[in-house]
Amino acid sequence: MRTSNFLLSTLKETPADAEVISHQLMLRAGMIRKVAAGIYNWLPVGLRVLRKVENIVREEMDRAGAQEVLMPTVQPAELWQESGRWEQYGGELLRMQDRHNRDFCLGPTHEEVITSLISNEIRSYKQLPANFYQIQTKFRDERRPRFGVMRAREFIMKDAYSFHLDSDSLGQTYDLMFDTYSRIFTRLGLHFRAVEADTGSIGGNASHEFHVLADSGEDAIAVCDKYEYAANVELAEALAVGGPRPEAAHALTKVDTPDQTTIDQVSRFLDINASNTVKTLLVQGAEGGLVALVLRGDHELNEIKAQKHPLVADPLVWATDDEIKQTIGCAPGSIGVVELAVPVVADRSAANLADFVCGANQDGVHFTGVNWGRDCAEPEVFDLRSVVAGDQCARADHNNEEDQLSITRGIEVGHIFQLGTKYSEAMNATCLDNNGKAVVMPMGCYGIGVSRIVASAIEQNHDARGILWPDSMAPFQLVITPIGYHKSDAVKTTCDELYSTMQQHGMEVLLDDRNERPGIMFADADLIGVPHRVVVGDKSLANGTIEYKNRRKDTAEDVPQNGIVEFLLDRMLKD
Amino acid sequence: MRTSNFLLSTLKETPADAEVISHQLMLRAGMIRKVAAGIYNWLPVGLRVLRKVENIVREEMDRAGAQEVLMPTVQPAELWQESGRWEQYGGELLRMQDRHNRDFCLGPTHEEVITSLISNEIRSYKQLPANFYQIQTKFRDERRPRFGVMRAREFIMKDAYSFHLDSDSLGQTYDLMFDTYSRIFTRLGLHFRAVEADTGSIGGNASHEFHVLADSGEDAIAVCDKYEYAANVELAEALAVGGPRPEAAHALTKVDTPDQTTIDQVSRFLDINASNTVKTLLVQGAEGGLVALVLRGDHELNEIKAQKHPLVADPLVWATDDEIKQTIGCAPGSIGVVELAVPVVADRSAANLADFVCGANQDGVHFTGVNWGRDCAEPEVFDLRSVVAGDQCARADHNNEEDQLSITRGIEVGHIFQLGTKYSEAMNATCLDNNGKAVVMPMGCYGIGVSRIVASAIEQNHDARGILWPDSMAPFQLVITPIGYHKSDAVKTTCDELYSTMQQHGMEVLLDDRNERPGIMFADADLIGVPHRVVVGDKSLANGTIEYKNRRKDTAEDVPQNGIVEFLLDRMLKD
Repeated sequence: MRTSNFLLSTLKETPADAEVISHQLMLRAGMIRKVAAGIYNWLPVGLRVLRKVENIVREEMDRAGAQEVLMPTVQPAELWQESGRWEQYGGELLRMQDRHNRDFCLGPTHEEVITSLISNEIRSYKQLPANFYQIQTKFRDERRPRFGVMRAREFIMKDAYSFHLDSDSLGQTYDLMFDTYSRIFTRLGLHFRAVEADTGSIGGNASHEFHVLADSGEDAIAVCDKYEYAANVELAEALAVGGPRPEAAHALTKVDTPDQTTIDQVSRFLDINASNTVKTLLVQGAEGGLVALVLRGDHELNEIKAQKHPLVADPLVWATDDEIKQTIGCAPGSIGVVELAVPVVADRSAANLADFVCGANQDGVHFTGVNWGRDCAEPEVFDLRSVVAGDQCARADHNNEEDQLSITRGIEVGHIFQLGTKYSEAMNATCLDNNGKAVVMPMGCYGIGVSRIVASAIEQNHDARGILWPDSMAPFQLVITPIGYHKSDAVKTTCDELYSTMQQHGMEVLLDDRNERPGIMFADADLIGVPHRVVVGDKSLANGTIEYKNRRKDTAEDVPQNGIVEFLLDRMLKD
Repeated sequence: MRTSNFLLSTLKETPADAEVISHQLMLRAGMIRKVAAGIYNWLPVGLRVLRKVENIVREEMDRAGAQEVLMPTVQPAELWQESGRWEQYGGELLRMQDRHNRDFCLGPTHEEVITSLISNEIRSYKQLPANFYQIQTKFRDERRPRFGVMRAREFIMKDAYSFHLDSDSLGQTYDLMFDTYSRIFTRLGLHFRAVEADTGSIGGNASHEFHVLADSGEDAIAVCDKYEYAANVELAEALAVGGPRPEAAHALTKVDTPDQTTIDQVSRFLDINASNTVKTLLVQGAEGGLVALVLRGDHELNEIKAQKHPLVADPLVWATDDEIKQTIGCAPGSIGVVELAVPVVADRSAANLADFVCGANQDGVHFTGVNWGRDCAEPEVFDLRSVVAGDQCARADHNNEEDQLSITRGIEVGHIFQLGTKYSEAMNATCLDNNGKAVVMPMGCYGIGVSRIVASAIEQNHDARGILWPDSMAPFQLVITPIGYHKSDAVKTTCDELYSTMQQHGMEVLLDDRNERPGIMFADADLIGVPHRVVVGDKSLANGTIEYKNRRKDTAEDVPQNGIVEFLLDRMLKD
């Protein structure tokens, strides 16, 4: 491509309303332009990148035996009523009526359409398993679209849906998709992690998210490199710290702690470490009444974990100050486990403490030297806290203290999910097994945020001058920057020849034939992130050399003109 | 692809609600499935064909220097209000509101979005001309969607928009797009015609439609093979028949024609040819009052042509019987040109008549021996009729009677249009010329109905057994049909080897490894229209041969097994 025939719409200034670096750089590099909130045009530079991602996703889905289909953007309400989601789905489902006043929606996802289709097309176990995917425009009417295409309303997604005779088969396809996703993100040249995810309210079985790692990621992920374990911080299992529990060494002692209600205040007042205190938090019980959740003073409650405990109301509801006063007789800052009138659930680490400090269920008074089993009943023990950096990995050998979790941040770009029969049951998608008996087909679903990948790759790969594309995603692999294309025949001829030779070798080349200053051409090439650059000028040609520079390196090198093609092919194929 | 891993969802019966053959065959071949009226799923067989079309369109648009972009499906009302079409566009524009009650529509076309985009991105004449295209999902809320994807509501279109400094440049890009479209339809292997089209109410300049020729086409097209001329029958220029006008030979004579009011009745009653009569039709005048349109008795009025005459109201409105009675004094069947009280516009052929018959403006009475200039004023002459087969071509040498038009039928699959400044003016899309003066950019637009092409190709290429794809569009180029794949090792090995060899040669192969009767496998392959088929069975293998058959031929031939690959490559590359 020659820039004279190409819309290279770069911006010098960072647009004021773009908060994250990928959004800023996509606007500055002329990749996208806003049409309305969360709705974008893809300009030529951006679309070239988007297509690269699409093609890699398509190739790997095909390799995994998935079949490509194309379902509609506009979906009839009837299908969503059948699954029950017409009412359940919130404001993100954009509903509308056609000219005959029939109800439709813009598809945010396609479980209903594919399940309805396949329930008609697949009749026999011989046709199973089958996995169908599409790469298609989706619409979710986000209340607050932001960060450019990272959280847009109209976006491009690869969604796949698999159908099975039984859950073993679903498990096999799930594992294949796990491997396929790993291949896809590896081929894209991205630093990523598969993360154990909550199967939550959808009620399926296994689920993994795939995250591109970037400091700006919205999600915190706990990672153990040794065991290839990664989980959302809120879901990662938190092991007990400090166990096993020591013997009791101190007597139970009541101390005055006037106006000391927070862990910080109490620890400082008593000159002890927060890790020797517990906090006692009251929440609504599943069967009415209150329940006490006990954590070490330096740990934080994880509400998602807590509400999974059978005694605790789901979703979690905090007790009010009034309820606490009425039930316990003190303010929230003075509750403790000694003679506590409500059931107690203690976090693993809190349950390992001996001789600890807690409130005395009386304002301005605490106990020291508290011991489980002696001063109060042994608690019910449960994983109630979020992991922190340095926690031991739950998958590791528990005696080996080296296997520690680190916390990193990620952007969710993929999600695979064992749906089970949620949709096939509701929409009566059955097939006949080898005994001629109708079986409700278990399903899996597998999504990739194609347009979001583009943004997440930039979050992970950029510097002060612009984008640092992996070769697999770059809009062009090579840029040829002439110094004096319109003045020197030698420069023009050399550039034109190199341009056409590299194209014949299958490389995507941008020849900057504009009549611009070199500084502007260099800045544009760096901004849009072309991985390889050559500079052709009369000076170096006189020496028989051409200058080469890799976008990720600081220095350029002179390459003999007669060996430039082999040199470039070597560098470009190596990356 | 092996059929065991492929959703080959063929139907034996013709679905009751499919009226046209392409719709029937697309359903029967498992290419599409209806989701709602005018909204379809594309199944794997169909999507493979659709992608072939998309790729050829994309390659040729790229070759022509057009730049691919991607604009959104959901468009904000503001842009349509700016162009004035928010109010003008009828019920086909599906309007909706987002969760914040802002107005949006589903894009049926993208003039507004691209003009708004380009008016911001292109500032200088140096960036012109520029042509931007996308291949994208469109929605038009057709009142009566029908014929499957031929007239669907959600469909796939390639739309392109070019921007220019002046109309000369627009003309050059228009010609380039004309050639590009011709290349596209030629590469698709379709029999097509470029047809002169009405620039009509949009007020642009040149416009051509591209039609795939098929007996079932909705449009009638007048074609002259010698002069490469083709036009919609309603727009084709109709030359005078029977000129020059002979001298008057008979006296004006009034004859009684009781109850004879139609041309048929009068001709039979007077025992003359209908071509010696005229019919006089009264319509509303542009400035009020009535105007008479006069045609030869055997010709039909073309309303589109008539309403272009300055005396005639546009759109054309017929005079009522009451108005005719009041103004002329008789019923519609007895009007004539002698002493007629309203202005007269005669078709070219009617104006060439001498000694003709017409009504006497008196019920039950006609004149014979009527002559223009003698019995009434010379009429204003205008092209008022539609061409019919056998008419002379307007582009031909007018003295050569061999250059006759034939009438054929077509399906519109492409449309190119010189828009001029309609949108750029309304949306203030200007660029600076080389004097630094702001110029409103003339625009062209160029559409191709990608999904409609698939249906139109079937209308043109089918037989009683199914579809006859051109190689360029076929879902698979070759089908391997084993006789006894699950019983004979020799058959299985031969098929597997041939399958992998042909794939290595870049061919798309379907290996029918189902455990089905040969008749079923043959029927499916014919139905989905695979152009080349080989049959591998123990019997022919014993003779050292494999059976080959071309889908368009009636007979098969035996090919030596050791030369089958070369034989197939030869056939498949030749087609």
